Amino acid sequence: MELQIAVSKVGKYATSESGDSLEMIERPGGGLSLVLVDGQHTGRGAKTISNLVARKAVGLLAEGVRDGAAARAAHDALFTQHNGKVQATLNIVSVDLVSKTLVLSRNNPSPIFVVRPSAVTELSDPSRPIGLYRHTRPVISEIPLQADTVVVVYTDGLATAGTRKGKLMDVRAKVEKLHTAGLEAAQTWADRLLSEALSHDDGRPADDISILVAAVLKRQTPDDARRMLVRMPL
Amino acid sequence: MELQIAVSKVGKYATSESGDSLEMIERPGGGLSLVLVDGQHTGRGAKTISNLVARKAVGLLAEGVRDGAAARAAHDALFTQHNGKVQATLNIVSVDLVSKTLVLSRNNPSPIFVVRPSAVTELSDPSRPIGLYRHTRPVISEIPLQADTVVVVYTDGLATAGTRKGKLMDVRAKVEKLHTAGLEAAQTWADRLLSEALSHDDGRPADDISILVAAVLKRQTPDDARRMLVRMPL
Repeated sequence: MELQIAVSKVGKYATSESGDSLEMIERPGGGLSLVLVDGQHTGRGAKTISNLVARKAVGLLAEGVRDGAAARAAHDALFTQHNGKVQATLNIVSVDLVSKTLVLSRNNPSPIFVVRPSAVTELSDPSRPIGLYRHTRPVISEIPLQADTVVVVYTDGLATAGTRKGKLMDVRAKVEKLHTAGLEAAQTWADRLLSEALSHDDGRPADDISILVAAVLKRQTPDDARRMLVRMPL
Repeated sequence: MELQIAVSKVGKYATSESGDSLEMIERPGGGLSLVLVDGQHTGRGAKTISNLVARKAVGLLAEGVRDGAAARAAHDALFTQHNGKVQATLNIVSVDLVSKTLVLSRNNPSPIFVVRPSAVTELSDPSRPIGLYRHTRPVISEIPLQADTVVVVYTDGLATAGTRKGKLMDVRAKVEKLHTAGLEAAQTWADRLLSEALSHDDGRPADDISILVAAVLKRQTPDDARRMLVRMPL
């Protein structure tokens, strides 16, 4: 099998910088963790917040701290630093090679979609952003690393695309459409969802949008290399 | 223009884990930094060392510390923790959107290749690994972010591929061959170099090999999104 993780990330129209932060680290013992944070508001201020939260979480994950504890610590740090007045959403997606699972940690009202050939499952237990209420904790789901699994995680800019026109994007419907089309590559999922959102927003995103797709697929490369590709407009 | 960064990374044959560490962070003020560390020896011990060094460097870069100071600090931390007895190579590749340059920081005897349509330049001023000698500092080069620039950075496993057969890979010759062929995409460069190395090693790498290619190319995507794709065998 192989794991693919694709991220597509765009800032709110006419802001210089996305307020979302994405960080990736290699976990001790192999595996990867991706941390996706949407800071309150947009632009520079949001970036400072999301960066603080993401740094805190990845620093702990790199030391071997478990995902749930890292999410709690990131909350505590934000809550303490801003006296409960600033919020952020926090998603951690980890590939844990020890337990052979995908660990999905969620402090985000937006759901996570888990797509298998048989069905689309929505992980939508009530979940609060971090930063506002003492003792906030993440909702954690573990799913086995098995082929033909696609997981879709996103910040709220995806679900609120279309706000300006009063016609919000129906993320679940789009995910089901992709599921029916039988798309496989993680990059394709992320690109299609982003392109739907941009079209709802007439190409001028009303909010920062980040989409993270993790896919476990049949092995497609002949060697044992890990690969990463980053592309950004200059 | 667009920036592409491709990394291909493979562990020494029959070790469970590469001793090289790669970390990426978003810099304050936009831009990215990639930190590539090759820890002494191979396997778990090397990974612990390279992870320590990479974490130190990215933590500082995330706070806005300049690249040269981050490299010095990573050296100091390793030197202090292991009493000058453990070494590592450290490369930092940063896309600095403020100065509009690629900042290449090198504590590594292996050179860096800078490829432009007109020529292949080898950055090979004498440079020491970190960890062994007090006050070790990086060799830093800044090159403007202009289209049709490809930068190739690697750990020594690339240059020592073929050791077992007594016929080392000539990295410069391979880079010049790719230059002549006029290849563009960063991923293609990284994949071709890795595949040459694996073929020199008969598919069983004699050392950890990591290749990082940064390319500034004409814009190829229609939107303003940043994209990342990670692939790893499971």
